[in-house]
Amino acid sequence: MESFMYFNPTKLLFGRGQLSHLPKEVSAYGKKVLLVYGGGSIKKNGLYNQIITLLEQAEIEWVELSGVEPNPRVTTVRKGIALCKRENIEFVLAVGGGSVIDCVKAIVVGAKTDRDVWDIISRKSRAEDGLPYGSVVTISGTGAEMSLTSVISDWETKEKRAWVSSFSRAKFSIVDPSFMTTVPREQTVNGIVDTMSHILEHYFHTGKNTPIQDQFCESVLRTLIDVTPKLLEDLDNYELRETIAYASTIALSDQLNMGFVGDWATHHIDHALSAVHDIPHGGGMAILYPHWMKYVFDKQNVNKFSQLAINVLGIDATGKTKMEIAEKGIEALAHIWTSWGAPSKLSEYDITDETLPLIAQKTLEAAPKCGNFKRLSETDVLAILNSSL
Amino acid sequence: MESFMYFNPTKLLFGRGQLSHLPKEVSAYGKKVLLVYGGGSIKKNGLYNQIITLLEQAEIEWVELSGVEPNPRVTTVRKGIALCKRENIEFVLAVGGGSVIDCVKAIVVGAKTDRDVWDIISRKSRAEDGLPYGSVVTISGTGAEMSLTSVISDWETKEKRAWVSSFSRAKFSIVDPSFMTTVPREQTVNGIVDTMSHILEHYFHTGKNTPIQDQFCESVLRTLIDVTPKLLEDLDNYELRETIAYASTIALSDQLNMGFVGDWATHHIDHALSAVHDIPHGGGMAILYPHWMKYVFDKQNVNKFSQLAINVLGIDATGKTKMEIAEKGIEALAHIWTSWGAPSKLSEYDITDETLPLIAQKTLEAAPKCGNFKRLSETDVLAILNSSL
Repeated sequence: MESFMYFNPTKLLFGRGQLSHLPKEVSAYGKKVLLVYGGGSIKKNGLYNQIITLLEQAEIEWVELSGVEPNPRVTTVRKGIALCKRENIEFVLAVGGGSVIDCVKAIVVGAKTDRDVWDIISRKSRAEDGLPYGSVVTISGTGAEMSLTSVISDWETKEKRAWVSSFSRAKFSIVDPSFMTTVPREQTVNGIVDTMSHILEHYFHTGKNTPIQDQFCESVLRTLIDVTPKLLEDLDNYELRETIAYASTIALSDQLNMGFVGDWATHHIDHALSAVHDIPHGGGMAILYPHWMKYVFDKQNVNKFSQLAINVLGIDATGKTKMEIAEKGIEALAHIWTSWGAPSKLSEYDITDETLPLIAQKTLEAAPKCGNFKRLSETDVLAILNSSL
Repeated sequence: MESFMYFNPTKLLFGRGQLSHLPKEVSAYGKKVLLVYGGGSIKKNGLYNQIITLLEQAEIEWVELSGVEPNPRVTTVRKGIALCKRENIEFVLAVGGGSVIDCVKAIVVGAKTDRDVWDIISRKSRAEDGLPYGSVVTISGTGAEMSLTSVISDWETKEKRAWVSSFSRAKFSIVDPSFMTTVPREQTVNGIVDTMSHILEHYFHTGKNTPIQDQFCESVLRTLIDVTPKLLEDLDNYELRETIAYASTIALSDQLNMGFVGDWATHHIDHALSAVHDIPHGGGMAILYPHWMKYVFDKQNVNKFSQLAINVLGIDATGKTKMEIAEKGIEALAHIWTSWGAPSKLSEYDITDETLPLIAQKTLEAAPKCGNFKRLSETDVLAILNSSL
């Protein structure tokens, strides 16, 4: 292991009925709240009304910012910041999935500075303060509720940036899987692929002496592969949703990657890809990850790939070389994802080779050190993109 | 899973060189420190001098409380409380293993009340405030550095109590395995058995739908069984110490038991046992745990035992009933521990049947609800103790 600091003070309230803690948790920080949500699914499933009732009962005032987009825009972040300043907001409450939480992470730091928030998102300057915020998670996958990372897009310049700040940590996150039983199939699959991709990014690291951490990652991956087909046959099954939600929440909580840094190149590529083409992150990862694997595995690093193939992907090692085992494992992973209905080719999103050089260029612009398990050049990224067409 | 709250804001600084953060971490809370340690091994291995030098450089004043016992006494806790009050201590620094940290957990709450600290330890009243404290861990096993629990003995009344308070959480814990390479063989084994017993206590729960958590527990147990024989041949091996220390720290961090409550009956029995006989906790657990297993496993709960036997203890299930698999697993666990030099019988500590009724009585006095996986009566506890002679 490398020496590490683990510090995750987000209070996680997980399971049925945990929303009842909302008034107490919010009141600890203030009585004037900005309520941020997305396209309105929380109005359909009744969650919006439950939250409003709880806030009213606790005499907490609120103003709203709705309509946060998937791949949230800096323009929406700026609206939220203006509201915080104008209304003297004391606390921000994110109700939604990763997009809403990511948007709120940027709002809370932007609300405490006179600089434009894109300076912080693009890492030109650092956040020096932030409003407190909490989250109520309605779609699992991104793990944004226990992580520092936020991803925001500038649609004018077609830029998408992942950034972190010590002020982008939620004070509390409420994860009640019963709010997730109405998430449609496609979004469910995208969320699960997203969670798996986070764990795979951890798993492919060059750290030494991490037997426990590697088995933790394998445990979560195995479980998701086991549970997902059952869930897709039974989308409103609480217990299966619970397992998926728990996996998603811990995947980016820093509990599975203590003492090493994962690869993350594929996330960089997908951020550039979805900045240009506005596709869902989980869909992008389902396409790109197996192609990243195929491109980077070689005789030097094959052990990790064959370990994954045997321990997670059910490959029988008998009579095969490690290279063959690895290759079978990659095929199995791609097959598993497509069997769930995830995309496997960029062409499924009507993407052609035309924009790929731009995407490769943007990947390296945003992440000049692209990949910790295997460092990629612009040429490498372009090759991976081309193989994903 | 049951609904749960996970909240562990201790900052963990793990790995080589992390002691360098000590001045900054302490200074955040004050400039007047009570330094608490045990029998003086930190003077032999140079850690004491390193800490003193760092405190001096940061112009942090300190007073000392040394000589904290294994199975720490409330009398020592009271000495620490008196020092805190007399010297206007702002921060307490525990340097040692679980005993020192447990003692400090009681000191920090006692320093903020006029009541006698035993009232809080014996759960007659609740802590309402506490001084901040941090820890530098020198012996792994108890996991006290990331947990709330503290265990304190009153030697006059032969009482030993486990208690928790929200004020008994460390602000930071520094875990550098290089401080542990001089821990003698017997203490090393006791620490590892202690860690394994924490994970086994988690593992035997009656919660539902915990596939990831169960595999996490199995991962840590498997790794400890793999690594320990190597470590015992090579006690100053940094990497092996690192694995052991990491396992110990996360075992009681609440990261392995989200959504369920483990059994803990055997811990209750050992607390009563070591209150009467002052034996090491790890030694007591090595003796008691296999006997608890043998006593409680039956047709209703056998699945968990056979799962452990197959997934962790290397039992080949072919041609065996679940009951047979479970039995073989229990034998294998007991054999593994004795092969490391851990005790397997109470008689090895010169304990006879004379005190067993008193121990059983004290177990139930301190823990009237003894065991969550299997609730035990005083008769049950006495039977387990008798089988352990």
